[in-house]
Amino acid sequence: MCAQYCISFADVEKAHINIRDFIHLTPVLTSSILNQVTGRNLFFKCELFQKTGSFKIRGALNAIRGLIPATSERPKAVVTHSSGNHGQALAYAAKLEGIPAYIVVPQTAPNCKKLGIQAYGASIVFSEQSDEAREKVTKQIMEETEGIMVHPNQEPAVIAGQGTIAMEVLNQVPLVDALVVPVGGGGMVAGIAITVKALRPSVKVYAAEPLNADDCYQSKLKGELTPNPYPPETIADGVKSSIGLNTWPIIRDLVDDVFTVREDEIKYATQLVWERMKLLIEPTAGVGVAAVLSQHFQTISPEVKNICVVLSGGNVDLTSVTWMKQAERPAPYQSVFV
Amino acid sequence: MCAQYCISFADVEKAHINIRDFIHLTPVLTSSILNQVTGRNLFFKCELFQKTGSFKIRGALNAIRGLIPATSERPKAVVTHSSGNHGQALAYAAKLEGIPAYIVVPQTAPNCKKLGIQAYGASIVFSEQSDEAREKVTKQIMEETEGIMVHPNQEPAVIAGQGTIAMEVLNQVPLVDALVVPVGGGGMVAGIAITVKALRPSVKVYAAEPLNADDCYQSKLKGELTPNPYPPETIADGVKSSIGLNTWPIIRDLVDDVFTVREDEIKYATQLVWERMKLLIEPTAGVGVAAVLSQHFQTISPEVKNICVVLSGGNVDLTSVTWMKQAERPAPYQSVFV
Repeated sequence: MCAQYCISFADVEKAHINIRDFIHLTPVLTSSILNQVTGRNLFFKCELFQKTGSFKIRGALNAIRGLIPATSERPKAVVTHSSGNHGQALAYAAKLEGIPAYIVVPQTAPNCKKLGIQAYGASIVFSEQSDEAREKVTKQIMEETEGIMVHPNQEPAVIAGQGTIAMEVLNQVPLVDALVVPVGGGGMVAGIAITVKALRPSVKVYAAEPLNADDCYQSKLKGELTPNPYPPETIADGVKSSIGLNTWPIIRDLVDDVFTVREDEIKYATQLVWERMKLLIEPTAGVGVAAVLSQHFQTISPEVKNICVVLSGGNVDLTSVTWMKQAERPAPYQSVFV
Repeated sequence: MCAQYCISFADVEKAHINIRDFIHLTPVLTSSILNQVTGRNLFFKCELFQKTGSFKIRGALNAIRGLIPATSERPKAVVTHSSGNHGQALAYAAKLEGIPAYIVVPQTAPNCKKLGIQAYGASIVFSEQSDEAREKVTKQIMEETEGIMVHPNQEPAVIAGQGTIAMEVLNQVPLVDALVVPVGGGGMVAGIAITVKALRPSVKVYAAEPLNADDCYQSKLKGELTPNPYPPETIADGVKSSIGLNTWPIIRDLVDDVFTVREDEIKYATQLVWERMKLLIEPTAGVGVAAVLSQHFQTISPEVKNICVVLSGGNVDLTSVTWMKQAERPAPYQSVFV
C-alpha cells in the first residue's frame, strides 16, 4: 500500500525519532460542557501549546533535519510560502540548525504571525494571496538564494512530521474512535491518516473544512483533485490553501469523511473554546470544533463516541478580535449560555 | 499558633477532603519564554481551568458542604456579594446541593460573570460598587430570604477552601521556592499562607496587588488593617475588595512580601500570557504575572528560583477586550517580541 503514496508509516516513525527531543508532547484536555453539548466524549489535542504556537513545527523540523545529512554541504537557505504558521515553524527550525530562512507570506496574514517569523530571525518576502502568485515569488527567491524549498503541505517530510500527532493521540487516548483534523493543504490530515490507518485502521479520520474553502470536500465528492477556484475568504487563515498532488491520494483513500462549516460556526466554536475552555485557539483550530458541533456531525453513529479534535494552533492576532462581538450563537447551543 | 487565626492548617486538610471529588486538580504549566524573560523557573497553577473558571469554587464548595451537616434543617438559601467569580462559584456549589442562591453583584461586573451566575440558576441582585453598599444590600436579602451569608473572602470555610491550592502546588512542584498570589479580600493568599507555613515554612508567600487597590501593601507597611479609602479603579476586577478582619492577621504574620503593579503592567502581563502561553487568563490573574515581571521582583534573591504563580481565573468578558490594543509593552521586555 505504501508505494502508492508519497509517504508510508515508516516515514512517520522516523519523523517521530527525528523531532521528539525538540518539540512538546502536547497535552490532551477535556471539557464537560462540550461533552454535554455534543453528546460525545471529546478530547482536545492541544497543539496550540506546541513550540511556535502550532503543529507546523513537527513537519518543518522533520524536513530540515532530513536535509542536513542528505547533502554533502549544508543547504545555503530554506524557502517556503505560508499563511504564517508553517513560516514561523520553518524559521524556528532553520534557526535551530543555523540555516537562513526566507518566508513568502501573503500581505493579509495576521500580524502576530509575521512578527513570529521575524522573531526567529527569518526574512519575510511579501506576495499576493493567490496560490500562483505565492509560487512565483517563491521560485524567484529560491533562485536568488540558492535555497531549498520546504513546501508547507506537499513536502513528504512535512506530511510525515505532522503524522506524529496521531502517534501521540493513539497513546494518549487509547479508546479514541475518531480524529477530527482541520484541512487546508492537507499535510496534517494526510500524515494523520497514514498513521491511524497503519496502527489502528478502525479509527475514523475526519477532515474539517471551511465551507468557503471546500476544495477537499469537492475533491472527495467528485473523486478528483479539485482546488479552490479562487483565493477563499475565511477567518480560518491557516486553511486557505488547496490540497495538492501529494496529499490528495491519501485523503481520497484514507480520510473517512469531510465536514464543511460556515464562517459563523467557526467563529462561534472558537469563542466557545475561549470562553469555556480558556484556551486561546486560532479560528483555524475552531474549524475542527465547529465540525463536531455541526448538524452534519450528529448523523455520525453514536458508537463513534470518543473523538479527538486537533486544536491545530493558537497564533491569534489579538489586536483584530473584532469578529468576537459578531459571533452569533447557532440555535441548538444557545441554552449553554443562559 | 493556630488559635490566633480564624483557621488552622487542619481546616485546610478538612476542606481538601470535603471538596476534592468535586473540583479539578488543575495542571501546572511552564513557559520557556517567560522563564527567559524573568530569569526564574516559573510554574503556573492553572486555576483558570477550575470548575466555574476560577479558584473560587474551592472556598464556596467547602463553605456550603460545611453548612449542610451543621444545621438540623437545610439552609433556606445562601447569599453573598461578589465581583463575580465567588458569586458564580457559590451559585454552582449551591446548585450541587440543591439550595437557592442569591448573589449581590456590582452593576459594573463583567457580563460573562453575570451570565455565569444565571447559568447556574442563582438569582442576581445588583448593588452600587462600594463595600458599604454591597453589604447593605446583602443584609437586606439575607433578611428577606432567611439566607445564610457566605462571605467571599472573610468566611473561614472559604479561606480554608482556597488553601487547598497550596496543598496541590507543594505536591506538583516539590522544589517550589515561592508562591505568588493575587490579593483582593485576601482569602486565597491567607489560605495559601496558612498551608505553606504549616507544611514548608521556608517557602515564601508573596501577594500581588494592583497599585490602584493597594490596601494589602498599605496595611503591611503601616502594620495595621488599612482598607482602600474608596472603590478602586482597576482592570483586575477580581481584586477590588479590601482585605478584612479575618485575613489581615494571617497576611500580617505569614505573607512574606507584597508586590504592587501598575495597570499597564497588568494589561501587558495578561496579553503576554494570552499570546505566548495561549491561556485565556483574566486580568486579575495577570496581576501575579505582572508581579514576577516587575522591577521590584528583580530585587528578590536569585536563590528564590522556582516560583509558582497562581493563575486565579479565566472569566474574561471577551466582548470588551478593547484595552488589548492599548497594552503598551514596558521597555525591558520589548525585545521578546521583535
